[in-house]
Amino acid sequence: MRTPSAIAYGPDELDLDLRWWAAANYLTVGQIYLRDNALLREPLRLEHTKPRLLGHWGTSPGLSMVYTLLNRVIRATDSDWLYITGPGHGGPALVAAAWLEGTYTEVYPHIGDDADGVLDLFRQFSTPGGVPSHVSVQTPGSIHEGGELGYALVHAAGAAFDHPDLTVACIVGDGEAETGPLAASWRLPTFLNPRRDGAVLPILHLNGYKIAGPTVLGRADDADVEAYLISQGWDPVVVSGDDPREVFPALLDALLDAHGRIRELQAAARGDGTDGGADGAGAPPSEAVRHSWPAIVLRTPKGWTGPAVVDGIQVEGTNRAHQVPLAGLADNPQHLAMLERWMRGYRPEELFDDHGRLVPELRGLAPEGDRRMSATPYANGGRLRTPLPRPELSAYEVVVDPAARGRELVENTITTGRLLRDLYAATTTPDGGGTFRLFSPDETASNRLQPVFEVTDRCFMGPLRDTDDHLGPDGRVMEVLSEHLCQGWLEGYLLSGRHGVFATYEAFAMVSASMAVQHVKWLQHAQELPWRASVSSLNILLTSTCWRNDHNGFSHQGPGLIDCLLPLAPGVVRVFLPPDANTALWISEHCLSGTDHVNLIVVDKQKHLQYLGLEEAARACSAGTSVWEWASTCGPDEDPDIVLACAGDVPTQEALAAVQLLREGVPDLKVRFVNVIDLMTLIPEDDHPNGFSDSHFEDVFTPERHVVFAFHGYPRAVHQLIHGRTNPGRFHVRGFSEQGTTTTPFDMVVLNRMSRFHLAKEVLRRARTRPPGWRELKDLCDRRLAEHETWIREHLEDLPDIATWTWTGPTDDAPTDDAPADPAPPARLPSDPVLADHGAVDGDGR
Amino acid sequence: MRTPSAIAYGPDELDLDLRWWAAANYLTVGQIYLRDNALLREPLRLEHTKPRLLGHWGTSPGLSMVYTLLNRVIRATDSDWLYITGPGHGGPALVAAAWLEGTYTEVYPHIGDDADGVLDLFRQFSTPGGVPSHVSVQTPGSIHEGGELGYALVHAAGAAFDHPDLTVACIVGDGEAETGPLAASWRLPTFLNPRRDGAVLPILHLNGYKIAGPTVLGRADDADVEAYLISQGWDPVVVSGDDPREVFPALLDALLDAHGRIRELQAAARGDGTDGGADGAGAPPSEAVRHSWPAIVLRTPKGWTGPAVVDGIQVEGTNRAHQVPLAGLADNPQHLAMLERWMRGYRPEELFDDHGRLVPELRGLAPEGDRRMSATPYANGGRLRTPLPRPELSAYEVVVDPAARGRELVENTITTGRLLRDLYAATTTPDGGGTFRLFSPDETASNRLQPVFEVTDRCFMGPLRDTDDHLGPDGRVMEVLSEHLCQGWLEGYLLSGRHGVFATYEAFAMVSASMAVQHVKWLQHAQELPWRASVSSLNILLTSTCWRNDHNGFSHQGPGLIDCLLPLAPGVVRVFLPPDANTALWISEHCLSGTDHVNLIVVDKQKHLQYLGLEEAARACSAGTSVWEWASTCGPDEDPDIVLACAGDVPTQEALAAVQLLREGVPDLKVRFVNVIDLMTLIPEDDHPNGFSDSHFEDVFTPERHVVFAFHGYPRAVHQLIHGRTNPGRFHVRGFSEQGTTTTPFDMVVLNRMSRFHLAKEVLRRARTRPPGWRELKDLCDRRLAEHETWIREHLEDLPDIATWTWTGPTDDAPTDDAPADPAPPARLPSDPVLADHGAVDGDGR
Repeated sequence: MRTPSAIAYGPDELDLDLRWWAAANYLTVGQIYLRDNALLREPLRLEHTKPRLLGHWGTSPGLSMVYTLLNRVIRATDSDWLYITGPGHGGPALVAAAWLEGTYTEVYPHIGDDADGVLDLFRQFSTPGGVPSHVSVQTPGSIHEGGELGYALVHAAGAAFDHPDLTVACIVGDGEAETGPLAASWRLPTFLNPRRDGAVLPILHLNGYKIAGPTVLGRADDADVEAYLISQGWDPVVVSGDDPREVFPALLDALLDAHGRIRELQAAARGDGTDGGADGAGAPPSEAVRHSWPAIVLRTPKGWTGPAVVDGIQVEGTNRAHQVPLAGLADNPQHLAMLERWMRGYRPEELFDDHGRLVPELRGLAPEGDRRMSATPYANGGRLRTPLPRPELSAYEVVVDPAARGRELVENTITTGRLLRDLYAATTTPDGGGTFRLFSPDETASNRLQPVFEVTDRCFMGPLRDTDDHLGPDGRVMEVLSEHLCQGWLEGYLLSGRHGVFATYEAFAMVSASMAVQHVKWLQHAQELPWRASVSSLNILLTSTCWRNDHNGFSHQGPGLIDCLLPLAPGVVRVFLPPDANTALWISEHCLSGTDHVNLIVVDKQKHLQYLGLEEAARACSAGTSVWEWASTCGPDEDPDIVLACAGDVPTQEALAAVQLLREGVPDLKVRFVNVIDLMTLIPEDDHPNGFSDSHFEDVFTPERHVVFAFHGYPRAVHQLIHGRTNPGRFHVRGFSEQGTTTTPFDMVVLNRMSRFHLAKEVLRRARTRPPGWRELKDLCDRRLAEHETWIREHLEDLPDIATWTWTGPTDDAPTDDAPADPAPPARLPSDPVLADHGAVDGDGR
Repeated sequence: MRTPSAIAYGPDELDLDLRWWAAANYLTVGQIYLRDNALLREPLRLEHTKPRLLGHWGTSPGLSMVYTLLNRVIRATDSDWLYITGPGHGGPALVAAAWLEGTYTEVYPHIGDDADGVLDLFRQFSTPGGVPSHVSVQTPGSIHEGGELGYALVHAAGAAFDHPDLTVACIVGDGEAETGPLAASWRLPTFLNPRRDGAVLPILHLNGYKIAGPTVLGRADDADVEAYLISQGWDPVVVSGDDPREVFPALLDALLDAHGRIRELQAAARGDGTDGGADGAGAPPSEAVRHSWPAIVLRTPKGWTGPAVVDGIQVEGTNRAHQVPLAGLADNPQHLAMLERWMRGYRPEELFDDHGRLVPELRGLAPEGDRRMSATPYANGGRLRTPLPRPELSAYEVVVDPAARGRELVENTITTGRLLRDLYAATTTPDGGGTFRLFSPDETASNRLQPVFEVTDRCFMGPLRDTDDHLGPDGRVMEVLSEHLCQGWLEGYLLSGRHGVFATYEAFAMVSASMAVQHVKWLQHAQELPWRASVSSLNILLTSTCWRNDHNGFSHQGPGLIDCLLPLAPGVVRVFLPPDANTALWISEHCLSGTDHVNLIVVDKQKHLQYLGLEEAARACSAGTSVWEWASTCGPDEDPDIVLACAGDVPTQEALAAVQLLREGVPDLKVRFVNVIDLMTLIPEDDHPNGFSDSHFEDVFTPERHVVFAFHGYPRAVHQLIHGRTNPGRFHVRGFSEQGTTTTPFDMVVLNRMSRFHLAKEVLRRARTRPPGWRELKDLCDRRLAEHETWIREHLEDLPDIATWTWTGPTDDAPTDDAPADPAPPARLPSDPVLADHGAVDGDGR
């Protein structure tokens, strides 16, 4: 069903739109070519052109056409639209549009709205200190960087979720359409609910070519392209042609029709109109909805309106129009003449007045104020953002009796799950929308975040079955088996002003590592643009870690995302390794409520010993890195023989177990115990805002004692951080290693509990003194390691006393001058907790 | 058109197949549950079960059914098949199949083919020292690790390319189908040529669920699923049901029909049969071919034949069957009883003889020898691999007149392009196939590798146009705008016994970084399995680097893949940074002809100064890191005041320019110049096979002088490598930084040529002495930096004398005791090379 065009589009309106388009194209070409004579008020000469011609013309005219017509739609329908530029190299087209709408000058007053401004606009493009050739964080109206391709549709979707009044026009290039993330993101109709969400209108722009050859979809026929989209829930229409006077009305018609159909879908879903709040009674079944979203397939020539043939070779309509159609201007006066003809063909004298300002009748084509896509607050999400509610954390505290530190087992992520539940509850709006979402590849429950299902479901717009578990169209937990979709949706959700978290497996977080890198870059630059308001931080929660992968082998073990993030902008990136449930809770809340960072939180979902009460956790997290006096075998003011440091939950457990061995075996050895939660504290303060000063660093780690460091990730990650500290060679890091035998990494299933013996041996090796009991303890460690190796191959699980180990040392911070050798804990019997799990399903789902 | 089943499938054959299937299912359940009483020769007791139940049942019966029937197809058609297990957690099913075929015992003699072997098979599964629960490198018949999901179809495609006689059955799970890489990989028909390539038969197995909920495709109706595949070039048939006696014949029919249609396609394309070598006359147009590939959509219950209902809750056919359907055996005797009933339902007493061996009539169902999918050499590609031809490198040498070192500009990748061209030529077979391919996201020409187009084209199985450039169905350069597809295809190509390279942009190499990580893990483990023959190394060539991105901004700059790879297996990973064309050539050839490594080669495609002749390049590359005496200002045996090191092409140029400044400004300063090509030489020898011994390291870098290090990537990458060296704090690394202002990273377009002044200043700061001229040179550097900053904003390009800088120092290795201050080079005029490019198209395509 197509609704007819809702507005008149007579020749006058078409002429105006074609002139606005000409202005956009003129400004696009000018940005690529000119450094002077911007409005061609005199004949074009070589010295008016840039010394290096850098930029992409090919995709730009198509982008500008869509922009031109959307402006007419916005004015006709008085609606909010966001424009996502998938073909990122159309940067100059979007800059031109923002300038034509006046936004550019408002945002960057040094770029005027007159002839001088035009020249400045041209000169800044692809030149030192200026703007890049692709859509970027500097481009007003963008939440999408046009660099790494593939994320247009996920960013569009993220912006549309829970923004019921917004329609996102998402231009997908046929080059980008070949990428994996884009291909997967066509599945959006299964996850988009018109009752509470806005709409995404994909405009698949097939200009047929990428850099050097045709695209797959560009050479596919219409029937295949339509079937591809229809089968995934879209109801597409094809618009194609190379005569603007025909294409413009057809595309406008398609856009207005799409708008009308979207509004009908939404009205039906919302029951009584488009303002939300209805109970959805009488709404169409979600299965029908997911086959009804409009989409547009647009076929126009690459490099449209540019030089058709250059030096006898077809350029327009081929990949040769991808970048700069006319080059070698210095050597080829003909090319210079062609450039001038091309630019004058847009009739700049009819577009810009004597002062170089856009003529009034064209100015009037832009929507008003925030309705301009270049000025919409949806693309500057901090303007829409309301702070996340901050619940009293004590409601989620795992009570840790100070006298029973390190003795109770609790799943470290369960506190976070409860926090997320209440954040959902507190941010859900009456229409079923909200400002907070959790994104995860099908692992919410596996990651022990299932408390969220007390207040919402998994989102699914397909047919339901009786056996389904917490699933439905109104669910707001986003589970899809694609890290790209999860992270991309979250990015769009955050950049348009909301809050959220991406929870995933540590090893497979690497799948979307490149997206995290790009998001860091975005936030880094956004911080330097005063007009960009702060957005919520991107939080990545890794809960199935390399140390407890159970049945999952070596391929499921990889702490590499830490290494990916460490080199990036220190003003943006932070890595947290909370050792227990209360620290995980505090860190999670801290990250969720914060802005402008990318936070990596690594905490295992399995049951772990608990060490810190909530108040202690808050202090430890705020400090970032601190001495745990109760776990040390010397007072805080004593000069230790060795520092035993740790970062991460399993490493903390193992370091404590090592202290216990040392306390019993070499009671005279003075061990200082240090726990690192905020990894960035290790970096020198000049290199990261969280970095400790050298004096503080030495207060904690001593100036010169050896440090044995039990680390969650790859050991060299620590080494790179402590560069710049005095004598970094005194740090001896034991962490996750890929360098074992075939069986070693897999054995980590069990052997993680044996690290204590390796750590104790390393302490004995590095300590300043060799106290009484030294050799006996070393022998004991070797013996236990051998015993364990034999035991696990026979019994397929840890030695009982290892499996049920708990801390038995002191539990308060009073200095322990006499370092009492506590009696060994009674061996736990097979009826104790861990062994009582006999036969229980254990481990990761994936 | 469907061909009828080519073989009789009477009740007897069906019964046999159902029993083989029962045996596979029995062994699968046994692996998950049992540690004793493997063949249930006595009543099942709790102590016969494993203490921790780890594994995945859900997908396994479907995988085993397909395997069973493919065996019948193989025997009926006497053809070669490779089995790719997309649902990787079906590990026990594939292990069971390999054991039933006898391969497992052949490969792992400690796992016998009798009752003891069955028990050992069970005990090793998901236990310490054993095998993981997913298909892995240890699984005979696999080239595909079942960990990170998304790559089944790209690995299948890679194996099929240039293997005309092979058919790859690729089981795609509906969970995996939600991932980006898998979604993109359905486009294979656009790139698969039946004239020279084998076939891929996708079997989309919709059991409806992932871990915790339904899948998108599982809940889509048949029409949508079929349309989705048809629109991308497949001709699918749906097989569904839950009665094995109906599904088996239907699936066998579909498999045989698919086989027949594949053979018809191939015969038509090859002109005279299936043996290749024809000229393709009379072959169908490639556009028709790409709509003709058979595919199967298979709908069977998740956890089929397992417990239907447990504790009153439906398990079979839902996500609850994903892992272990019956848990809590210790607490729930009923569950233990159900497990026994379930296992006995397969009638093990009729499957295994008194010795526990598979009964003869079932043994006979497996194909013979290498036709067994668990034994096929296509899955152990080193058995098929022939060494790559090794052309005489002198044919590609860029002649560097020793007297003119550092004075001529050549594109650093052009030598590699010519080498690739000749490798194509030398490895192409008469039927148009071959053993070598280049994979790239549409950037072959942009990366200056275009010489390959002298001998082949880009591969494209769609309609062609007159304006197309080096494009056609017989082309063997694989360009698709997806790093995932490029890298995944290459992985499959290599693991099935061929050679190749993946060339891409440095920043966007991060898109498939996780795949590189997984491939490293695969090779690391494969090296430890004697039965796995060596395969060609995976070579990643990064040619558009962070230092020369021209119009592309900050988002296009990212050397992070280096940091991703550094922590991985030292026996596998190597990172090379050749400084010029001959070193790039030598390294490329070295990597292409090697085995069992993942090599990262970072070299910019733009024109650079040339320093080393081919023989010198060979020496420098073999050494990995070496002193460049001609560039030093002191003799090789002299104790320098400072070491100036560099790694990478732009850093080498800048370090040389810094030396020139120092030579002229502080002629008394003794600078030793060190160039690093093999980054791994920096690691201590105990930690990497390429690592220098401490004494060698100190021979090069001195034991204690400060080292100013100009590095291509993030500086802390170097710091992590040199941990363990004496006094690592003396290394002062300047590299790529994300920490500038908004404009700095983008300014790197130009400012990379200004690093020389920063380096010179750093040398002056760190040198042991402050020689005459020290302050003047420092002031000069500051002045030039300021001058340049002003100049580039006015002129939009480098200062002329900077842009055209060349080396003017000594060019031979004779010690230069007197350190002559060469006269400053004459300022080059604007007619010189770089400025003569005025108006040329420059920069990257993307």
